[in-house]
Amino acid sequence: VSAEVVGEVAPAIGAADLEPRWVRVRWEDGRVSRYHHLWLRDNCPQLRHPATGHRTVDTAQIPADCRPTAVEVVGGDDLRVTWASDGHVSTYPASWLAANDYSNGVRNARPVPVLWDAADIDVIPRASYPRLTADDAVRRRFLTGFVRYGLGLLSDVPCMPGTVLEVAARFGEVRTTSWGKVFDVRSVVDANSIAYTNLPLATHTDEGYRDPAPTVQLQHVLRADARGGDSTLVDGFRLAADLRHEHPEAFRLLATTVVRFRFVDAATELECDAPVIDCFPDGELRAIRFSNHSATPFLLDFDEMEPYYAAYRLFGDMRESPRYRLRIAMEPGELYMVDNRRVLHGRTGFSAGGARHLQSCYIERDELVSRLAVLARAEVEDI
Amino acid sequence: VSAEVVGEVAPAIGAADLEPRWVRVRWEDGRVSRYHHLWLRDNCPQLRHPATGHRTVDTAQIPADCRPTAVEVVGGDDLRVTWASDGHVSTYPASWLAANDYSNGVRNARPVPVLWDAADIDVIPRASYPRLTADDAVRRRFLTGFVRYGLGLLSDVPCMPGTVLEVAARFGEVRTTSWGKVFDVRSVVDANSIAYTNLPLATHTDEGYRDPAPTVQLQHVLRADARGGDSTLVDGFRLAADLRHEHPEAFRLLATTVVRFRFVDAATELECDAPVIDCFPDGELRAIRFSNHSATPFLLDFDEMEPYYAAYRLFGDMRESPRYRLRIAMEPGELYMVDNRRVLHGRTGFSAGGARHLQSCYIERDELVSRLAVLARAEVEDI
Repeated sequence: VSAEVVGEVAPAIGAADLEPRWVRVRWEDGRVSRYHHLWLRDNCPQLRHPATGHRTVDTAQIPADCRPTAVEVVGGDDLRVTWASDGHVSTYPASWLAANDYSNGVRNARPVPVLWDAADIDVIPRASYPRLTADDAVRRRFLTGFVRYGLGLLSDVPCMPGTVLEVAARFGEVRTTSWGKVFDVRSVVDANSIAYTNLPLATHTDEGYRDPAPTVQLQHVLRADARGGDSTLVDGFRLAADLRHEHPEAFRLLATTVVRFRFVDAATELECDAPVIDCFPDGELRAIRFSNHSATPFLLDFDEMEPYYAAYRLFGDMRESPRYRLRIAMEPGELYMVDNRRVLHGRTGFSAGGARHLQSCYIERDELVSRLAVLARAEVEDI
Repeated sequence: VSAEVVGEVAPAIGAADLEPRWVRVRWEDGRVSRYHHLWLRDNCPQLRHPATGHRTVDTAQIPADCRPTAVEVVGGDDLRVTWASDGHVSTYPASWLAANDYSNGVRNARPVPVLWDAADIDVIPRASYPRLTADDAVRRRFLTGFVRYGLGLLSDVPCMPGTVLEVAARFGEVRTTSWGKVFDVRSVVDANSIAYTNLPLATHTDEGYRDPAPTVQLQHVLRADARGGDSTLVDGFRLAADLRHEHPEAFRLLATTVVRFRFVDAATELECDAPVIDCFPDGELRAIRFSNHSATPFLLDFDEMEPYYAAYRLFGDMRESPRYRLRIAMEPGELYMVDNRRVLHGRTGFSAGGARHLQSCYIERDELVSRLAVLARAEVEDI
């Protein structure tokens, strides 16, 4: 029933006592856990949808005076609670109680990102695309790495236009935007973006002016005849973590100041307000949005302008420094995938003469993570 | 160049003085504005992409000692700045300086949502779908209302399966998820969601376990023969605003406690961590995520559990109370659109006998807002 994977075998329950506001569980190994009455009723395993584990009661409708008349241990493995209001009986497995033992510090763990810089080029997840399509274990390893590093590189991708959509479909559903499902990156006359020139493109997250911004970008190299045009990639979470440690006030400014990103052309007008560093309320990193070209003029308190610029430029310097910035000369048939809420990408300038052609598309991260989780179930079954 | 629409005619510039860290502008009406050197250089209109207004310089690369050698007023309308480092000349129109006068409090304004409750049923934006497709002014009014209220109702939508996708395409690009492009809501045996039963469905935001959650949902009624099954709709921003005012500590708990939402079935495993009330760092409301069925057991500090439940249940009670909750008996051919980061939706229970069939899909809000902005340009031209 619980969403949590129980990592170890839970000890048996020795005894359970009914207290005025909670149930006290004494485990056979001597530890004590406490579970509030309301929490127990709200999470009754017998009031969950059998297929999805979804709660079938409205938490707000549970009577405020909801309390047990009796608690007992059944077979050493289950806690059985009988409820005063309606006589309902709830049975909680010991393993589930242990996995959700908030009174002893059990919390929802988020996957911990592995931070990287330019020295870590060899640990970036890589796979051959034909092998990945043929072998679930290869796909699983690649996606596990992608979730950890926010980046993955594929090789041997067929150099046919449109293939990036096929690759994307292996990991999620393509997000169509006003640019279409797939968009071509090459030099064009009267470009509506620096991306479509041969100028260098400083590292950035894509589509900062969209709300929500796309969460995963795929970029497939079809031709790379021009001199230059190396791909550049930076771990924005690494930048933020180092900034937080070395320049906490700069971090604070970037995490608390909301700026505006904007794109306007004849057919489009996109806008998003967000901080450069987006944190969860508990302070953990949630997203990076660094799109210098699309940031509108900062409109801040006069006395905050210079400190904010100092912080913003420091982050901007870090992202382009050789210490943090990976530089990869991608060949035709190679493709990278980035977590667009974490990893910044760009390119060096290239000669105007040679042809350079990339195709890009977006998917959303939730589908990718879901597919990985389902693949990982098969792995557990394999063992 | 500026993203801002200049609402009034700016006064002429009387004089400009070069100060050590900023330029002082004295307007002919006597007001004084100040613009930092770095801000001016960073926002030089001549260093912007002509088509998109995007910045063509990397802000981090502007030399720290960048300062003007001379400032002058040209024709009373423009500020001309000559730069010491490279002799570059920047020209700033007076109207642009006035529109970005941060030293006098100009800030990026976000559209202010108009909060509503059940008494406001008559102000909810409504349109006849055939009229909306035929008349840009109708579409413009409807979308303006949607952005303001987070809700819109369409009538006279053809009762053909798949039509919801056509309607969606008028406002944005459909977001495909693992449920497909369109999904059918009707009673089914072995439902994997309460949505697919005839039980009442308390108001919620959709897909709380997706990250990002879809931002706009469309729901089209194809059949409604069953007794009951009224649509319920609540303005989550109104709930949050009232909670903040009447129960600030409850608001604080919902805005700072991260909870986990989850969906698992045989083919899918989706998860998102977020607070119920998501605020910008400056405190403005950003999103509501209230999906009681998919919330996993709260895992909080023992002493925070009861206060959090009290806050959560208070919000949950408010959302279902007749004061806040609209109730609409939707007929076949009607369709509602909700801002899924703001408006909660649900339904009352219905008789198992009669048929009830809805089709739903998602689009993203940024495209909708973009299309409205482009429509609104035409309006400006019409005048």
